[in-house]
Amino acid sequence: MTTKKTRLRVIPLGGLDEIGKNMTVIEYGNDMVLIDAGIMFPDEAHPGVDLILPDYSYVVKRRDKLRGIIITHGHEDHTGALPYLLKDLGRPVPILGTKLTLGLIAGKLNEHKIKKPKLREITAGGKVSLGIFGFQFFAVNHSIPDGVAVFIKTPVGNILHTGDFKLDQTPIDGRVTDYAGIAKAGRQGISLLLSDSTNAESPGYPRTEATVGDSLRTLFAEADQRIIVASFSSHIHRVQQVCDAAVGCGRKVVVTGRSMVNNTKIARELGYLKIDEENIVDAYSMGNIPPEKVVVLSTGSQGEPLSALARMANGDHKTVRIEEGDTVVISATPVPGNEKAVSRVINKLAKAGAIVKHKGIADVHVSGHGASEELKLMLNLTKPKHFIPIHGETRHLHAHADLAFAVGVKEDNIFVMENGDVFELSESGGQLGTRVQAGVVYVDGLSVGDVGQVILRDRALLASDGIATIVIAVDAKTGKLVGEPEIVARGVVFADEGDSTLLADARARINKTLAKTAGEGATDHQVIQNAVRESLSQFLWERVRRRPMIIPVVMEV
Amino acid sequence: MTTKKTRLRVIPLGGLDEIGKNMTVIEYGNDMVLIDAGIMFPDEAHPGVDLILPDYSYVVKRRDKLRGIIITHGHEDHTGALPYLLKDLGRPVPILGTKLTLGLIAGKLNEHKIKKPKLREITAGGKVSLGIFGFQFFAVNHSIPDGVAVFIKTPVGNILHTGDFKLDQTPIDGRVTDYAGIAKAGRQGISLLLSDSTNAESPGYPRTEATVGDSLRTLFAEADQRIIVASFSSHIHRVQQVCDAAVGCGRKVVVTGRSMVNNTKIARELGYLKIDEENIVDAYSMGNIPPEKVVVLSTGSQGEPLSALARMANGDHKTVRIEEGDTVVISATPVPGNEKAVSRVINKLAKAGAIVKHKGIADVHVSGHGASEELKLMLNLTKPKHFIPIHGETRHLHAHADLAFAVGVKEDNIFVMENGDVFELSESGGQLGTRVQAGVVYVDGLSVGDVGQVILRDRALLASDGIATIVIAVDAKTGKLVGEPEIVARGVVFADEGDSTLLADARARINKTLAKTAGEGATDHQVIQNAVRESLSQFLWERVRRRPMIIPVVMEV
Repeated sequence: MTTKKTRLRVIPLGGLDEIGKNMTVIEYGNDMVLIDAGIMFPDEAHPGVDLILPDYSYVVKRRDKLRGIIITHGHEDHTGALPYLLKDLGRPVPILGTKLTLGLIAGKLNEHKIKKPKLREITAGGKVSLGIFGFQFFAVNHSIPDGVAVFIKTPVGNILHTGDFKLDQTPIDGRVTDYAGIAKAGRQGISLLLSDSTNAESPGYPRTEATVGDSLRTLFAEADQRIIVASFSSHIHRVQQVCDAAVGCGRKVVVTGRSMVNNTKIARELGYLKIDEENIVDAYSMGNIPPEKVVVLSTGSQGEPLSALARMANGDHKTVRIEEGDTVVISATPVPGNEKAVSRVINKLAKAGAIVKHKGIADVHVSGHGASEELKLMLNLTKPKHFIPIHGETRHLHAHADLAFAVGVKEDNIFVMENGDVFELSESGGQLGTRVQAGVVYVDGLSVGDVGQVILRDRALLASDGIATIVIAVDAKTGKLVGEPEIVARGVVFADEGDSTLLADARARINKTLAKTAGEGATDHQVIQNAVRESLSQFLWERVRRRPMIIPVVMEV
Repeated sequence: MTTKKTRLRVIPLGGLDEIGKNMTVIEYGNDMVLIDAGIMFPDEAHPGVDLILPDYSYVVKRRDKLRGIIITHGHEDHTGALPYLLKDLGRPVPILGTKLTLGLIAGKLNEHKIKKPKLREITAGGKVSLGIFGFQFFAVNHSIPDGVAVFIKTPVGNILHTGDFKLDQTPIDGRVTDYAGIAKAGRQGISLLLSDSTNAESPGYPRTEATVGDSLRTLFAEADQRIIVASFSSHIHRVQQVCDAAVGCGRKVVVTGRSMVNNTKIARELGYLKIDEENIVDAYSMGNIPPEKVVVLSTGSQGEPLSALARMANGDHKTVRIEEGDTVVISATPVPGNEKAVSRVINKLAKAGAIVKHKGIADVHVSGHGASEELKLMLNLTKPKHFIPIHGETRHLHAHADLAFAVGVKEDNIFVMENGDVFELSESGGQLGTRVQAGVVYVDGLSVGDVGQVILRDRALLASDGIATIVIAVDAKTGKLVGEPEIVARGVVFADEGDSTLLADARARINKTLAKTAGEGATDHQVIQNAVRESLSQFLWERVRRRPMIIPVVMEV
């Protein structure tokens, strides 16, 4: 079916103008593959929402062409949509990833009761074919081990998708970015580079991960009581450095927090985390060891209210109680939006007497994303004809576009795109095609996709101004009022506290309005409802300068 | 009445374990003064709240002793509670401040229709008496001109309250911190220092404000289209530097945004902002000037959705439209909690084609608060016997306490306090007394103090899970059900979108429950309401894993 004129289509369905839900479609004729299938975590603009999925209906509609899903690394913003996507695809599409990536995915799919997924292990340096596409994988560094960039041979040219990456010259596991492989691919000619933009605004090169180990050792040497370190549980190299620093100063490691327990277990089983059994102690046995002989490795580096660290700060962790003089290291940076939550936990720890070391005052964290000089090096290694900055907010995509222009990519060949935009590549060149459906799907409890903008707008209004329901009973035959109207309010000043005359005055105003509509002979419920809504709304604006949601209910009895 | 044994009482009512609503009581026998009367801005933990006041009922109860309110500088977290406090005091207490501080306060009190306030101008270096207290004021630097530290002579010892400060060796207005005055006070003996802790975690000395001018000049020289600079409108020195850089490269200054227009007007009238009339252009006349000859000075550096800059980013500002290639400088740092809002504006500006320069990528901002070396210098200049770190979250107060200990203040003489804690000073020493009432008062529309924890909890629950109201009509005589129950929901998945069988199934479940309670002969409304609430709650948990607020209303007809 595919002729010389078939165009390759590259469609980011997520990860553009946002940090999260990364997903890119690569499609040629009758073959399609997906790179990554991630989620995004909601913020205050999405009250009550648990997760945000990319709208992947484009993929589901073309499911018969889908040859496989390649996952670049094991972070949830690259893997988290898999359980939902697999259910919607309704058939076991092969999932390709490195060993650790698949290990983390297997655990997640198991939680979602997805039976017998087709997990296909790939290796850095290895090659596979899916449909018409040939793939090769290159080791890259990131804040999780075993990440890869994906090199794709297509009928119209070669593509390199970097995944998330940094170029660490002294990575903890010695697995240096595969410069030779990437450079060789570059020499073969790369028609299109898709590259991680997260830190495109950051100047220079970040420090190597190994320097965090130096800082940890210094801090551990100064501590004469219990040490608690909070970090991302998937950051196995960070965890390794904490373990090494602990063992190096004669302390045992205690692991707490669900994901930290799970991920360290998987990483140890698969050989990514190395610590002797005798140096790991169960949280419940910790009481037997003196505080100065323990390092607690904990979740909660983002200030999550239910995390192990937040529980310690609140004094309600099951096994760890903060004592005056304990050292707490927050070995992470707050994800944008989490700054206040993290600060809240730091304040509580400080109140409890802990010495808190965080990124702001100690070198206890480095980013997992390449900064501008690294991004330029990637561009210079690959010398792409076309460039699409991916994985970042618009500000980052633009900054990355500027870097590409600075190293010599032609301005017309740089495409700052939005989710759902289509990049079409033929042998003669690249161009934008017709946009496809893209967007967000909210997971809210068990509901996937039922919550939309109307509900979110309602929730935001409920939060800022509250709600008042007015119930009016009318006789079904005569249409006349029966009894007194009832007002039930929540989140409004007359709800539970405050001005006690407000409710009585509101009732009086509504009665007056009802008398007026009755006098005018109105029996249509809609008319009565509108009159009541308008009258209470105006009353509350006059009295308290608030416009709560007002729901009039007319009941026929 | 005051005897030798009377103790001086120092009571921070706001500003501890928080950034904002600064207010400190100084009380001795029959005399009381207040230093600062600020507000705090609400965050996502206070949905719908407009402002947060300190609970100053301690002051209002003792209003007859209140000799005056000293305001250290014109920021709202030091002045914003004045309109509310003055109303509650019910008498015109003298307000003391420097010229600019009073100018800004006068505007605010006028907006609140407070007639004839007793504004008393003080000067840096000047002295005044209030009751038994003698005051002297020392110039300090900050992100607003005309700030002072307050030196207080009391019968039991001298106090220095720094206000907010930094030590800028080359301030824009040449008004260097009064080192000689502070040092002289130090030589007289300072029993108690209260000092600004905001940046106690920051190492070293920050750059001088003048370096921002260098950066602005460089950026302005590179720009060949319109330049827009967003900053705090009260940061008159920053505004001065923007004006100077604009005039220096032959551009006119256009001022936009309500507070920017107001504050630059006041500052020019009082002589704090110097720019020739011919170099300031009305926003509506801007169209006549080529873009490369204009600098727009704007509000919105915090990403406020209704600010001038946000309107420009959204394309709905009345007079300024962002063109591809315009330069936008955000000359500020996001206040914690505003990071995402600022980023949202930057992304929109980038989408509109603007070149956005912000603190993360250019030296366009320095803090107005002293970092740790400056705080230590203040401690060394004053050599206080006792020390209370103020103005900061607990983490900052502890960091400042550590600095004080490092420069030699005795550990027992350092008091990390909470709002409402009482520090008592006598000639023999200092100690903590019995706590007094302190806390928060929410301003919500016209209501002051009516919104409390119950309403805020309700609003948070409404936002995350929504609300469902069930109306049931019963015959007043027989107690029997009349008609069908009505369900009205907002913010829940069956409200407007989503699973259409959910509502029908919920109704069926409620009918079943009502049949059951009727079968059991229940007529008590409370019993019926509880049964209905429980049954719908359980139904929704099973079906959608959500627990919205459920309000059953039983109407007698």
